[in-house]
Amino acid sequence: MIEAKLIDELNEIVGDDNVFTSPEELLCYSYDSTVLQHLPEIVVLPRTAREVAGVVKLAIRGKLPIVPRGAGTNLAGGTIPIQGGIVISITRMTDILEIDTVNMVAVVQPGVVTGKLQAEVAKQGLYYPPDPASLKVTTIAGNVGMNAGGPHALKYGVTSDYVMGLEVVLPSGELIRTGGKAIKNVTGYNLTQLFVGSEGTLGVITEITLRLIPQPESSGSVLAAFADLDDAATLVNRILQAGVTPAVIEIMDQMTVQTVDDYLQSGLPRDAAALLLIQVDGVQAAVDQELEVVSQLCRENRATMVEVATTPDEEEVLWKARQSISPSLTRVRPNKLGEDISVPREAIPQVVNRIQEISRVRDLPIVIFGHISDGNLHPNILFDQADPEEMERVEAASSDIFEVATSVGGTLSGEHGIGLLKQKYLQLDLPEATVEVMRTIKRALDPDNIMNPGKVFPED
Amino acid sequence: MIEAKLIDELNEIVGDDNVFTSPEELLCYSYDSTVLQHLPEIVVLPRTAREVAGVVKLAIRGKLPIVPRGAGTNLAGGTIPIQGGIVISITRMTDILEIDTVNMVAVVQPGVVTGKLQAEVAKQGLYYPPDPASLKVTTIAGNVGMNAGGPHALKYGVTSDYVMGLEVVLPSGELIRTGGKAIKNVTGYNLTQLFVGSEGTLGVITEITLRLIPQPESSGSVLAAFADLDDAATLVNRILQAGVTPAVIEIMDQMTVQTVDDYLQSGLPRDAAALLLIQVDGVQAAVDQELEVVSQLCRENRATMVEVATTPDEEEVLWKARQSISPSLTRVRPNKLGEDISVPREAIPQVVNRIQEISRVRDLPIVIFGHISDGNLHPNILFDQADPEEMERVEAASSDIFEVATSVGGTLSGEHGIGLLKQKYLQLDLPEATVEVMRTIKRALDPDNIMNPGKVFPED
Repeated sequence: MIEAKLIDELNEIVGDDNVFTSPEELLCYSYDSTVLQHLPEIVVLPRTAREVAGVVKLAIRGKLPIVPRGAGTNLAGGTIPIQGGIVISITRMTDILEIDTVNMVAVVQPGVVTGKLQAEVAKQGLYYPPDPASLKVTTIAGNVGMNAGGPHALKYGVTSDYVMGLEVVLPSGELIRTGGKAIKNVTGYNLTQLFVGSEGTLGVITEITLRLIPQPESSGSVLAAFADLDDAATLVNRILQAGVTPAVIEIMDQMTVQTVDDYLQSGLPRDAAALLLIQVDGVQAAVDQELEVVSQLCRENRATMVEVATTPDEEEVLWKARQSISPSLTRVRPNKLGEDISVPREAIPQVVNRIQEISRVRDLPIVIFGHISDGNLHPNILFDQADPEEMERVEAASSDIFEVATSVGGTLSGEHGIGLLKQKYLQLDLPEATVEVMRTIKRALDPDNIMNPGKVFPED
Repeated sequence: MIEAKLIDELNEIVGDDNVFTSPEELLCYSYDSTVLQHLPEIVVLPRTAREVAGVVKLAIRGKLPIVPRGAGTNLAGGTIPIQGGIVISITRMTDILEIDTVNMVAVVQPGVVTGKLQAEVAKQGLYYPPDPASLKVTTIAGNVGMNAGGPHALKYGVTSDYVMGLEVVLPSGELIRTGGKAIKNVTGYNLTQLFVGSEGTLGVITEITLRLIPQPESSGSVLAAFADLDDAATLVNRILQAGVTPAVIEIMDQMTVQTVDDYLQSGLPRDAAALLLIQVDGVQAAVDQELEVVSQLCRENRATMVEVATTPDEEEVLWKARQSISPSLTRVRPNKLGEDISVPREAIPQVVNRIQEISRVRDLPIVIFGHISDGNLHPNILFDQADPEEMERVEAASSDIFEVATSVGGTLSGEHGIGLLKQKYLQLDLPEATVEVMRTIKRALDPDNIMNPGKVFPED
């Protein structure tokens, strides 16, 4: 199927060691963090933008699909090579090209691991806020491709808010640059933000210019329990209305609390309807004042428990519960499907109640946790993939959840993306005319549909 | 030229009172805030998105260009009907449809005046930060079309950072919606940000969903003078590195200070190389601590004068100088051309020095002021339009300034846009391949080139 000539040419571009064609090698690039899988025909690991462009040009000639891939942590099937072709793995493009402390900008190759960048800029007193849960392995370009978020969105924004400029190999094989180091830039269309979140369907990102901010001087946290979910939800707005924008506000519903407590045995309030974890940061005086305002408002909003942490060690204890959610879930059922709906904040109590109802009706454990301050919830359906009948109910519950989210003006995905997994629900969320505009742009920039085909929107 | 039938049909859609064809009426829509001018053939003032769509469909049939227009305050010639056709004025679409205090979102018609929205949301304790200098007359859709900025960009961002969703009439006459009230949204391509800053070339915006934030509890300001421009410039970074992100940092160079002092006679330090005006905001304890940090750092950075304002009245006195720049300039020369370059922060001292040199070489007064914390400077060239020889030097100085900005990695425009005025300099800033991607998108969405033709990039 694949010509020997093509392999030779790829070897010439990226070196023999960086072209994989054996079944066992291809298998490693056939999946991501979903349950989906499909084998590519070739995997290449280029080192430079020029090499990426060379690979793309060969793919065009051979009419082979290209799938750009970072660490494969995405939760939407966005990097599954569903039509075979060439996977371009960026995991050898790992140079931090520049940390510019005066302009507060980093320029990086696409394969830099997010957590590594955070650690490096922190050494210079700088801060790169986007922190998806996978940050220890995930790549910056993967984050850019899916527009990854994290718990800091309300105060600090998501990946897109930090991308100032890109270098991209287009589906034509041509290399372009967008944006740059100027903070304000209205010269021409905002191509940068068109590529962010386009899931590798418009090009292969080969360099990223990122905005950094100064590290906050200090932080502090509050853990509060509530007997009534509405009290937890309305608290978020009371805090914001008091002029305090916390760095993070996380919610855990009752089933999440109980699951984590089974795992940690740490004496969490198992009868609470919801736990909130609130972190504030800034100059020390602001942190002190804001912790006082927040804990006072928790009590006024009928919290049944309020704990305050003012040192990093104390904060670590409070956050242990949140960080233990994922490991605790696998003890309940062997598999989980983590949804990623994002809804207007006001709708949260209603959405949580309706998902708890879905859990009862579909007879599946669904834990609900997430970033309550920005409306991004992660209902995780727990199941056993080996049971086909159960899988049908998982599918149904998933569909129910999307219907709830879109019925209150929310969206299918807040930070994971559409990929393969959610395309069939796209029409619940977006009018056909809006999708058609997206398709028109895709067709214009990739007329041969070579770049990550079959992702985001269903094929024509 | 214009068929009577078309006028009849337009009358039917928007009402007789809202279709203008007389020369004196057309004249009012022939200019914006530049020196450029061109008459439209018809002006219509629709009231609803449906009416806009109806007008666009008639324009398509008659192959007439469409120019969407807000208050006409733009500084780039973006709303000049350079190829005639139909101006769609949105100034009757002025409803604030919703101020949702729980989700902190406003939904507005496009013609709402920015300052009016700010005042209305402030009544609810909310804040819409983008504040172009024209905010008392400028419209939200005008701000969205040009991606207007203002002094708050570093801490609070620009218009694009607040646009969550749009309703747009496409060049096909079709109405689409993008985004919504969910803070995090990665469902499909980011069409919202493609329309923001596209200067009316991709559609007519008919509704805007805007993010709001809580009003800061308090604010305070520092005015500091410096004998050395470098000291003023490096101070900005020292403040940020101390973990303080001021709401605003404005710079005025010596000629600006002297011009304002001639006008105000308020005893500004005329021998200072630069004045900085710094405003911090947040909870009261943070403001107090940050004012102390900032004034201390000013002294350490050799400020020759430091004044601190802690009450609104005191702040007003300090900010009087900044607000008097524009009125003071007209006393020097009858006309001014306000440039809008945006450069990496580190380059500011060099850029200011080089523009002062341009002023000497071209023998034209150029005052330099702007938003130093985000690198967006407004060199204003002062001249007399009646003198053709002087106009040639203005053109040359303008070109010199763009060369300086782009040579240090900056851009032609930070917040005013490209419009007609800066297109011929586009190739200084953007590689041809990048411009070609923009053109490809324009052609795909507007194959007949009906929507604000001739703007942003030179015609093929």
